Amino acid sequence: MKKLTMTLVLLMMLFSSFLITAEGVQEQAMAPAAVQQEQAKYVILLIGDGMSTAQIAAAEAYLGAQRGVMTSPMSFQSFTAQGLTTTYASDRFITDSAAAGTAIATGSKTYCGAISVDESGTPLKTLVEYAQDLDLATGIVSTTRITHATPAVFASHNVSRNEENDIAADMADSGVDYIAGGGYRNFIGADRGLKTKRTDGVDLISEMERQGYRSFVSESMTDTFRSWNPRAGEKVVALMGASHLDYAIDEAHQPTLAELTAKGIDLLSKDKDGFFLMVEGGRIDHACHANDGMTSIGDTLAFDEAVQVAAAFYQQHPNETLVVVTGDHETGGLTLGFAGTKYESAYGMLGDQSISYENYTYGEFAAYKAAHTVQDAAVTDLIPSLESNFGLYDMSESEIALLQSALERSLGGEVVKSTFADDYLLYGGYEPFVMEVTHILNRRAGLGWTSYSHTAVPIATFAIGQGSDAFMGYYDNTDIFTNISAIMGVDTL
Amino acid sequence: MKKLTMTLVLLMMLFSSFLITAEGVQEQAMAPAAVQQEQAKYVILLIGDGMSTAQIAAAEAYLGAQRGVMTSPMSFQSFTAQGLTTTYASDRFITDSAAAGTAIATGSKTYCGAISVDESGTPLKTLVEYAQDLDLATGIVSTTRITHATPAVFASHNVSRNEENDIAADMADSGVDYIAGGGYRNFIGADRGLKTKRTDGVDLISEMERQGYRSFVSESMTDTFRSWNPRAGEKVVALMGASHLDYAIDEAHQPTLAELTAKGIDLLSKDKDGFFLMVEGGRIDHACHANDGMTSIGDTLAFDEAVQVAAAFYQQHPNETLVVVTGDHETGGLTLGFAGTKYESAYGMLGDQSISYENYTYGEFAAYKAAHTVQDAAVTDLIPSLESNFGLYDMSESEIALLQSALERSLGGEVVKSTFADDYLLYGGYEPFVMEVTHILNRRAGLGWTSYSHTAVPIATFAIGQGSDAFMGYYDNTDIFTNISAIMGVDTL
Repeated sequence: MKKLTMTLVLLMMLFSSFLITAEGVQEQAMAPAAVQQEQAKYVILLIGDGMSTAQIAAAEAYLGAQRGVMTSPMSFQSFTAQGLTTTYASDRFITDSAAAGTAIATGSKTYCGAISVDESGTPLKTLVEYAQDLDLATGIVSTTRITHATPAVFASHNVSRNEENDIAADMADSGVDYIAGGGYRNFIGADRGLKTKRTDGVDLISEMERQGYRSFVSESMTDTFRSWNPRAGEKVVALMGASHLDYAIDEAHQPTLAELTAKGIDLLSKDKDGFFLMVEGGRIDHACHANDGMTSIGDTLAFDEAVQVAAAFYQQHPNETLVVVTGDHETGGLTLGFAGTKYESAYGMLGDQSISYENYTYGEFAAYKAAHTVQDAAVTDLIPSLESNFGLYDMSESEIALLQSALERSLGGEVVKSTFADDYLLYGGYEPFVMEVTHILNRRAGLGWTSYSHTAVPIATFAIGQGSDAFMGYYDNTDIFTNISAIMGVDTL
Repeated sequence: MKKLTMTLVLLMMLFSSFLITAEGVQEQAMAPAAVQQEQAKYVILLIGDGMSTAQIAAAEAYLGAQRGVMTSPMSFQSFTAQGLTTTYASDRFITDSAAAGTAIATGSKTYCGAISVDESGTPLKTLVEYAQDLDLATGIVSTTRITHATPAVFASHNVSRNEENDIAADMADSGVDYIAGGGYRNFIGADRGLKTKRTDGVDLISEMERQGYRSFVSESMTDTFRSWNPRAGEKVVALMGASHLDYAIDEAHQPTLAELTAKGIDLLSKDKDGFFLMVEGGRIDHACHANDGMTSIGDTLAFDEAVQVAAAFYQQHPNETLVVVTGDHETGGLTLGFAGTKYESAYGMLGDQSISYENYTYGEFAAYKAAHTVQDAAVTDLIPSLESNFGLYDMSESEIALLQSALERSLGGEVVKSTFADDYLLYGGYEPFVMEVTHILNRRAGLGWTSYSHTAVPIATFAIGQGSDAFMGYYDNTDIFTNISAIMGVDTL
């Protein structure tokens, strides 16, 4: 009965709180409706390019194998709101990063190749532009060239993703407060003595500096970038590689995606009005195009480190922050099973791979190619290298035969870019020998691939924080825009 | 001010309702806690064997192609609660249906092959047994033999999934009110003139009839089954095929999964205490083992029709029903993209396939094999058959060459069950010629496969109704048991 009395007292207190003022009553009555429209002052959208459930599961399984357990989930897998997302473009069921990015950035389906323009080429307003209208600070970060499709759709408009010099010019005028990634070659003139792709002599970085940007351009500024302490109101462009940044698996002397993200959050969060930041793990896609499992896993784990930076900021500002993690499409048709290994998997062995297909192609293997002809090419020459770089020990006769055949194709100068089906299936458009190396390692580990292109399997979306419930269920990539814009407080009507 | 006055009046009325009786107050005060633990009187769990996100996306894309749109989602894709689910067994990262089913049915990880027993062989209590403790009616339905792993784990215990005669005997004693699917051959003696696998002469169906079961055994009882009107308190065993039921794509004269589900719900819902029903779309898995895309899609769509039956029951009893749709693991490493077709897909052409790999193997192709030798085998003989059954028109020279090679292997009696890697990769353990046929069709359409076995990609889980919020997020298959048992009101502690 004591409990009952207490309950009655509490109910009386509750009731009396409704009576304080007339306005007070109305506020109380409105409260549930307000909860329905949660708003976030800080929005961080992280996109794993080419990352779907298989890429996530492979990274999780690899971590598990390293730690002696079945699976060791990444940070975002425990986010409270999760959903599956369809990705198709307006003109093709299998999308590309331009159309998929445009859907996420603008809420509109468009054709493959479009950079935030509709099918008639008319610019579509982006989340960055909506955020700027709301006086939010804005930022875009990527491990790719910043003019590559995914970052491009957030800070430029173009009828073609291939017009990277024009995209760079558009970005230079975008007013985005923090631009960080690779790809200075589309921004700089010839004077700097660095690689450039511009033929018009314009140095966009100088133009941006005149606008007030602080710049970090070239890999040699990495230490300078790391020691930079962001101050309120600064605008920054940091392009730390001529083209894409290095894969995480390779010995990188560039800032990591997590570092680029942390500096960005540090800078943008000094804006009193809040911010919108897009972060792309852009090279998961590239590794998956090449069917290089461990390089994909390495970049996925590096992406998760950037997510952890965002999640830590959310923890500090839980009632003002939304963090969304998604992909734009799947790449490679990755699955966690291979016909030859049947029900077995051995992801632990992937840990012996210490170099990406890319660095091996243009490094050690390029040196071997330069020193040999197709007549004197012998896999046995390369076995020590395959053991130390890829952990390919105890190769079987059939593996050696596959490698010898691929080696002869490579030494013969054959890189199959054509659509002649059978040979294309073997190596895509890549260096035959290096592809055979990663194919053998992936098959041994029990990873399967079906394509060198994208696929249309749905991708997974994860969200935490203000308004995150909107990201539950099965929905389209355009809904990511719709949800984020509503939670940012944009009136898109 | 009028609105405000009304609000105040409503608040007074609300408050007065707390004062009716002392007990009344306590009930009201408890209400929010009760909402946290939603309970369902009716629980329907539908499992697509081998069905993960790619199988779902393929079915959705196929439907879209048939309807002239990009995608046409199935019923369960709009369920309010969705999640991704890990599937590993205790002894292997890539699970089998026995271990995965046991995890769902009992909440415990166990070894591959285990039928609701733990690693020491001790029986684990199942959802069906918990439901029976609560006096709920129970049912199990599958398109496979009812003694196959997934249905078996819900109504029997065995150290090995292969002991199907023992599993049948266990099921006959299980007290389950509604048992419907295929596989009478493990239940009947020789007297019936039907195919049997029992060597002990025991006719379990007769034993079940003595317990009071109404029986429908053999395909020839399909009309009788269809005209049966369930009455409260009946117990029913309906085994409508010697082994598995036919694939949906084949001209089936057996009840559909939706029909078996509807009769089950009709019967079980007459129990005043509620029910637990497990429904398996069991042959999505078989079609995916054989990498037969259209047969998988056909059974996935048939599974969705069963889900629609469950969802319709939910609509009638929204405050008392939980419907959960999941898979046990992915099969085949299916993805929606193939290296040879790159970014293109043409799922519409799959609609020209009108027969499963299985019926073609044991039907038309078996007849061809019987009439020919490896010396006189010519693909040209079979082209009209490939056109009419699979829509394989205008075959290229390389396709013809692949088929001729496979035909010669088939006519030579070669079915590669061995692990000799290269040949196994070509056709798995299946009829070479028929596998080459479906491979070619799938590749033309843009579907890719990586395995003839299961894979470890996470599966998707969908739920609607009472307590369904528990199924959001990224969780393990054992959590499906944990959630369902809590929502059924089981005290598992």
